[in-house]
Amino acid sequence: MFEKALLYAQSGGPTSVINASACGVIRQAQKEGLKVYVALNGVDGIFKGNIVDVSTEDDKQIDKLCGTPASAFGSCRIKLPDYREDDSKYFQMLETFKKLNVRYFVYNGGNDSMNTCAKVAEFMKNNDYECYVMGVPKTVDNDLLLTDHCPGYGSAAKYIATTCLEIGLDTAVYSTGRVTVIEIMGRDAGWLTASSALAGLNGYAPDLIYLPERPFDIEDFCKRCEEVYSRKKNCLVAVSEGIRDKGGEYICNYAKRGEKDAFNNTQLGGVGAFLADYVTKKTGIKSRSIELSLMQRCAAHLCSKTDVEEAFEAGRYAVKAAVAGETGKMIAFKRKCNSPYEIEYVAMPLDDIAKFTQSMPDEFIGKDNCSVTQAFLEYAKPLIQGEIKMEYANGLPVYAKLENKPIKF
Amino acid sequence: MFEKALLYAQSGGPTSVINASACGVIRQAQKEGLKVYVALNGVDGIFKGNIVDVSTEDDKQIDKLCGTPASAFGSCRIKLPDYREDDSKYFQMLETFKKLNVRYFVYNGGNDSMNTCAKVAEFMKNNDYECYVMGVPKTVDNDLLLTDHCPGYGSAAKYIATTCLEIGLDTAVYSTGRVTVIEIMGRDAGWLTASSALAGLNGYAPDLIYLPERPFDIEDFCKRCEEVYSRKKNCLVAVSEGIRDKGGEYICNYAKRGEKDAFNNTQLGGVGAFLADYVTKKTGIKSRSIELSLMQRCAAHLCSKTDVEEAFEAGRYAVKAAVAGETGKMIAFKRKCNSPYEIEYVAMPLDDIAKFTQSMPDEFIGKDNCSVTQAFLEYAKPLIQGEIKMEYANGLPVYAKLENKPIKF
Repeated sequence: MFEKALLYAQSGGPTSVINASACGVIRQAQKEGLKVYVALNGVDGIFKGNIVDVSTEDDKQIDKLCGTPASAFGSCRIKLPDYREDDSKYFQMLETFKKLNVRYFVYNGGNDSMNTCAKVAEFMKNNDYECYVMGVPKTVDNDLLLTDHCPGYGSAAKYIATTCLEIGLDTAVYSTGRVTVIEIMGRDAGWLTASSALAGLNGYAPDLIYLPERPFDIEDFCKRCEEVYSRKKNCLVAVSEGIRDKGGEYICNYAKRGEKDAFNNTQLGGVGAFLADYVTKKTGIKSRSIELSLMQRCAAHLCSKTDVEEAFEAGRYAVKAAVAGETGKMIAFKRKCNSPYEIEYVAMPLDDIAKFTQSMPDEFIGKDNCSVTQAFLEYAKPLIQGEIKMEYANGLPVYAKLENKPIKF
Repeated sequence: MFEKALLYAQSGGPTSVINASACGVIRQAQKEGLKVYVALNGVDGIFKGNIVDVSTEDDKQIDKLCGTPASAFGSCRIKLPDYREDDSKYFQMLETFKKLNVRYFVYNGGNDSMNTCAKVAEFMKNNDYECYVMGVPKTVDNDLLLTDHCPGYGSAAKYIATTCLEIGLDTAVYSTGRVTVIEIMGRDAGWLTASSALAGLNGYAPDLIYLPERPFDIEDFCKRCEEVYSRKKNCLVAVSEGIRDKGGEYICNYAKRGEKDAFNNTQLGGVGAFLADYVTKKTGIKSRSIELSLMQRCAAHLCSKTDVEEAFEAGRYAVKAAVAGETGKMIAFKRKCNSPYEIEYVAMPLDDIAKFTQSMPDEFIGKDNCSVTQAFLEYAKPLIQGEIKMEYANGLPVYAKLENKPIKF
C-alpha cells in the first residue's frame, strides 16, 4: 500500500498570514512522514483534479510562505450543500481521497470552510473511509466563534492602527483641518474598526469609532464631528463598513435610497464616502473619506510577527490533532494571559460554528457608542506585536512564488 | 550683536521625508554655529509670530524626524502675492527677521514654496537686508522642474509599487477575478502612477497603466480590460487621478456631467470608482476600485532609505549653499549614473520654476499609451531602494513628537 497522504487547501478571502498556516501544515505533515498534497483553489481543486504534490515545489519558497500575503494555492468561494440533500460532490471527493490515499484533510478558511470541514468529516465517517478532517481558521474579521481570536486579524489590526497613526499625523499638519472618515472592513463585527484605536498607543487614535455592534445615528454623528472639530480644527473618524441604523438598515444603503431626494444626488462608493459627503453638507466642514480596502488584508510587509507565528502553529497543531485521531474539529486559540501574553492551541468541535458570528462583547465598547474601552486595547495589543524580517529585492518585498503544477492521477 | 540665525519652515502637502529634510537643515545649521528657528505652519508662523527655538526640543526627537511622516512643524497653503503689487507681508517678514537676526531662510515645499523663496530672496536684496534664501524641494508628485527627481517621490513610489504587488497577489487568488482599478495621485503628471509598474520587478505589474500625459479614451480602456480579462480572468489597472480625454476634460468630471443620463445615476468619488463602475456596465465583468489616497504620501513605515537620505542631504546642502552666499536658489538632484546610482546636489536658480510642471518624457511612456518603458523602470528603480530601521513600540512605528512651543519675542 502506498504512503498515507495529507491534503490541504485554502478557502475564502485571503489574509496576510493564511500562507503561514499553509507552511505550518506542510512542515508538520512532512515531519509526520506524510505525503503532502494541496488542492488548488480550495475544494474546487479536488473537484477539478487540480492537485499539487508539495514535494515538487522549491523548499525555500515553502519557507517563504510565512510573510507572503494572499492565498498562495488559490482560493474559492464554494459552499458545499448538506450531503444528506446532495452527496454528489462528497462522493467525488471520496473518490479522489481514495485514489491518492488521503487520510488527513486540513481546510483553511473562515466560517463556511469550517462548516465544510464538519460536513466532510461526518460524510467520511458515515461512509467508513478513515480520514481525519481538521479546520484551520483564518479571517481578518476576527468574527469566528470558539476562538479567542483568528489568524489574520493581528496583521490586519497592525496595518489599520499604523495607517490610522500615519493618517492622523498627515491630516494634522494644517491649522485648519477637516473631518476624515476612514472606512474599515467588517460587515458584521467591529473588531477591525476597533483596532484603529491602537494608534492611540503611539499618539493618534481616531476621535470617533463606529462599530456595527451599536446602532448608528447619523445626526448624532454629525453633532459629534462638529464638537470635535470645533475643539481641534480636525476630526478623525473610523467607521465600519457594516454600521446600521436602529432599524437595522445599512448606512451604506442610505445613498442608494433616500438621499437622492434630500440632496438631489445619489452615489456609489462606500459608507465612508457617504458620511464624509453628508457631514459636509450638514455642517459645512470640509471632509475626506479613505477606504482601507484590500490593503488591510494583504499588506504583509507590515504583518504582525505574533500573528504569523500563531498562524504557523495553528497549521502545525491541526496536523498533530489529525494524526492523533481528531476529526471534525478546528484549531482554536485559548488565551491564558494578557501580560505576559500566552495562548494555548486547542481542538474545538465544529458543529454549529458557521451559523453565528462573534461580535465584540459589551465590555469592549465605550458607553458613548463611539469608542472602545481599555479592556479592548489590552485584548488587541498583544496580537499586533513584532515584525518579521522581510526579504527585499529591487526595493520591494520578495514574496513566495510557487509552481502550482497539478499532478496527473 | 547677538548670533546669526537660520529660519526654516515647511509648506504644502506632507510627504514621508519632508521631516528628514528638516533634520538635515537643523543639523547643518547647528554645525555652522547658527541659532535655528522654525516657523510653525510655514510662512504663516512668521506672520503670526509662531516661531520655535529648536534648541528647546528634545535632541532625540530631532533625529527621529528622519522616517517620520507628515510635516512635523505644521504646514500651510499660503501663496504670497508679488511684492511689487503688495509688499505688506514681506515687510512683516523683514521685521521678524530683523528682530531675530535671521540671516538665512530655508523654505521646504513644492512649486509655490519655491516661488515664495524666489520672491523673498529678491525682496530682501532690494531692501538691503542681508539674508540668504534657499529652497528645499519636496513633492510626492515628482513634477518640479530643474531636478532629476524630488524628495518624497521615492517613498511614495515604494509604497505604491509594494501595494500594487500585494493587491496583485490578493486579487489573483480566485479562478475568476475581476477588473481592479487602482487610483493613484498626480493631477498633472504620471510619475506616481507609473511607479506602480515597479511591482513587476517582483512579479505583479498592473496590466494597464494610464497617465495624464496621454489622452484617455474610455471605450478603448474598456476594450483593453476585456482583452486582458479574457486572457487572465483578472485585470489590474493603475490610473492617475488626473487623466483627461482628448478634449482635455478630466475623466473624473464625466460622472458629475453626462453619465447620469447614460446610466441614470451620478456619483461622487474619484476616477477609479467611476471607471470600475463604467467597465462593469459596459462589459459585464465584475470590478472594484481602490484609492491609495493619503497613504501613498504618509506611509513612512515603508519609506525608501535612498529617499530619506537624499531628503536629509538636500536640507544640509541648502544650508551649506546659504552660508556660502547663495540666495534665491533651490537644491536640485542631478543624476550622474543609474548603475551604480549616483547623484550630485546642485543649487539651481529658481526664477520661473513655479509656472510649469515636469511631465513624464515620451521615452518613459509605452507606445500603446497604457504602459511605461524599460527606461522609466531604470529611472525609478534606484529611488525606492533600501529600508530604514524603524523603531517600534506597542507593535506600531514610533514617530517623532515635538513640543512646538512658540518663543516670545
